[in-house]
Amino acid sequence: MEKKKLNIGLIGLGVIGSKIFEIITDLESHNYSKLINVKTIVVKDLSKKRNFIFNKTKISSNINDILDDEEIDLVVEVVGGESPAFDYISKCLKSGKDVVTANKEVMAKRGLELLAIAKNSSTQLRFEASVGGGIPIISSLKNDFSSNKIDGIRAIINGTTNYILTRMSNEGLSFREILNDAQKLGYAETDPTNDVEGFDSTYKLAILTNLAFGAKVEIKKIYREGITNIKNKEFKYANELGFSIKLISSVKKINNKLLLRVHPALIPIEIPMANVNSVLNMIEVHGNLTGPLWFQGAGAGPDTTSSALLNDIFRIMDGISKSEENKTKIFEEKFSLINMDYHNSKYYLRITIKDKAGVLARLSKILGDNGISIHTVLQKDTNIELKNAELVVMTHKAQEKIMLEAIKKIKKLEDLVTFDSLLRVEEY
Amino acid sequence: MEKKKLNIGLIGLGVIGSKIFEIITDLESHNYSKLINVKTIVVKDLSKKRNFIFNKTKISSNINDILDDEEIDLVVEVVGGESPAFDYISKCLKSGKDVVTANKEVMAKRGLELLAIAKNSSTQLRFEASVGGGIPIISSLKNDFSSNKIDGIRAIINGTTNYILTRMSNEGLSFREILNDAQKLGYAETDPTNDVEGFDSTYKLAILTNLAFGAKVEIKKIYREGITNIKNKEFKYANELGFSIKLISSVKKINNKLLLRVHPALIPIEIPMANVNSVLNMIEVHGNLTGPLWFQGAGAGPDTTSSALLNDIFRIMDGISKSEENKTKIFEEKFSLINMDYHNSKYYLRITIKDKAGVLARLSKILGDNGISIHTVLQKDTNIELKNAELVVMTHKAQEKIMLEAIKKIKKLEDLVTFDSLLRVEEY
Repeated sequence: MEKKKLNIGLIGLGVIGSKIFEIITDLESHNYSKLINVKTIVVKDLSKKRNFIFNKTKISSNINDILDDEEIDLVVEVVGGESPAFDYISKCLKSGKDVVTANKEVMAKRGLELLAIAKNSSTQLRFEASVGGGIPIISSLKNDFSSNKIDGIRAIINGTTNYILTRMSNEGLSFREILNDAQKLGYAETDPTNDVEGFDSTYKLAILTNLAFGAKVEIKKIYREGITNIKNKEFKYANELGFSIKLISSVKKINNKLLLRVHPALIPIEIPMANVNSVLNMIEVHGNLTGPLWFQGAGAGPDTTSSALLNDIFRIMDGISKSEENKTKIFEEKFSLINMDYHNSKYYLRITIKDKAGVLARLSKILGDNGISIHTVLQKDTNIELKNAELVVMTHKAQEKIMLEAIKKIKKLEDLVTFDSLLRVEEY
Repeated sequence: MEKKKLNIGLIGLGVIGSKIFEIITDLESHNYSKLINVKTIVVKDLSKKRNFIFNKTKISSNINDILDDEEIDLVVEVVGGESPAFDYISKCLKSGKDVVTANKEVMAKRGLELLAIAKNSSTQLRFEASVGGGIPIISSLKNDFSSNKIDGIRAIINGTTNYILTRMSNEGLSFREILNDAQKLGYAETDPTNDVEGFDSTYKLAILTNLAFGAKVEIKKIYREGITNIKNKEFKYANELGFSIKLISSVKKINNKLLLRVHPALIPIEIPMANVNSVLNMIEVHGNLTGPLWFQGAGAGPDTTSSALLNDIFRIMDGISKSEENKTKIFEEKFSLINMDYHNSKYYLRITIKDKAGVLARLSKILGDNGISIHTVLQKDTNIELKNAELVVMTHKAQEKIMLEAIKKIKKLEDLVTFDSLLRVEEY
């Protein structure tokens, strides 16, 4: 069956936009240009110099040049952010154009609205590129777990933070030092907040949660803790105890409610996720029939993101997207969200105390009074001049709420010099 | 849209057949039984005792009870093997019934014939369960690499051999000892040939190659070497050199031709695949845009195989399968197969020699004369009484054909006592 050539509009011509334009118009292979024609590109700044030969492609700064063009079938949105992307995507859908996006923020915050608009307009909205780059996690959650009840998802889904944590661990340098270098090398943005404070991860986690559990997630209900406060000492001690440190994004079913959290965590070194380094991503999905499945690969970058965008375009071209919309729902459950109080884990804490008799006993008593028992204690870096010592404590499992109560009391211990670190330990 | 309840026939009621019947008819949840009715089950031996309540499901030993029943829409085939499965599947397809199978052997040997029959009969044939259990590798290769040229696939796709190799490595026992135990525990079959000699892996590799490259693969053209000759000493030495040993199945594009091979190989310990242990599977796919992606999970077992079978059933129910059939082909290349002579790798070899001066020089000369240089030599287990010593040699990269020529000459070395082992090293 001969398929009609697809006319597409492209919104955004940054790193991703340029790459996808380059791939589609690759004159050497002609593989894509036989099928797809980039008719119009909308950019913010028309005056910006670009190293492209645009041939018949129109460059405009007016979104209406896409919206009003009835010949454009599909729009690729790669500007990112909530606004004006929401406006652009919704108008495209309403004007009968399918949309493919890499925008995690708009999908996390307003994806359900956009999907409803698509449904009402009989258009398709796809977003494989929004999580995990070329890792086909969106499509897998849509189709490959239909027969499963999903118990949870746990992931490393932010390349920048994983790059920074990997280098902190390998090189023993501080967060600031590695961040500066990462910025120079293009692995972190000038304003790195979105990545290093975990916002980007919360967006992706919200998208995965919606797909896996059908649950609407308000971003602010996700527990979020970034990596900016992790000290480089922690990597050394964690390693000694048999762990590596990763920024984990997790959703877990607990008594039919969902607990969502993004925070640095200790991961046992023998677990595959502990060894996912640099800019790699890994998503672990627990199905009741499949058991844990792991998807791993480069989670970002122009090539791999373009791969995901193009696959979405083909799914729309081939009508696969439309069939998926009409999918049989096997399990229809409603989930509400619970907060971090209900989290249960082992904890790693590091404190500096005055090096004298009885301090450890008082610390143990506080924990013990709260029902928390100690698994391991390491005494480190005794400073003879200051008469200080460092204690690294690994607890047995405790409930977050109770742990935080205990921490309050520990912070009031009279022999405490500084409370240095508190990290959670992932359970496997 | 209300969907009609699907009437299915089930061929085979072994471990997998029983599990899928149990899941579909699970009276507690009713999730599946609302959608699917197992109308007829065909078994080989009607007299066998089974712990099932069959209710309205008919049990028969006559395949015609499925073939002639116009109410049966879809057939699940879980008997395995080429015959009579080929006959059953082709007849089902011709009589207008869609088929879902877990049968790697029939798909590897006669899958293209069966897919052609399906096409001619306007029926669907799906086989996600044939490779990697619940890992959605078939569906990913069909849809998630559309925009990529695939350069190669490398995988651990046989649970039994990975279980045996993992235990040999951990426990230092021989292949025979672990095999016996694995048979007792149900991880290896009474006749383990299919797994331990690598046949099962060649079937799966042929299926993956067909999907990734559109190439028809004759099984006998795949280089195949099982794990039965691996000695337990190798694990110790490989480990010392920084490697683990896995049964690797690989297809790689070399100058636009394909080289397919299944054999034990040394894998650098820092590579994710080196740490895929026990019955886990991992499939690594290299796309030109995605870079390497890794898919990992339990590759076998009744639950995870049922998960894949059920997902295929739903893809057919929802019309996704039909849309996929009509997929746009981006890259249409023809590949021919080349043989192992063209393989290039580093080699690990272990020999026992007479412990006297000049032997290593003569060995180096043979290798050097063939253009092969030595990377590392370990002298091991010198036996003072016999005046024997073991040499473990790791070479730099060489072509297989040349290496085998050199090995012939090494075997004729007058100071050689035994030629113990030759293993290939995977390149990353």
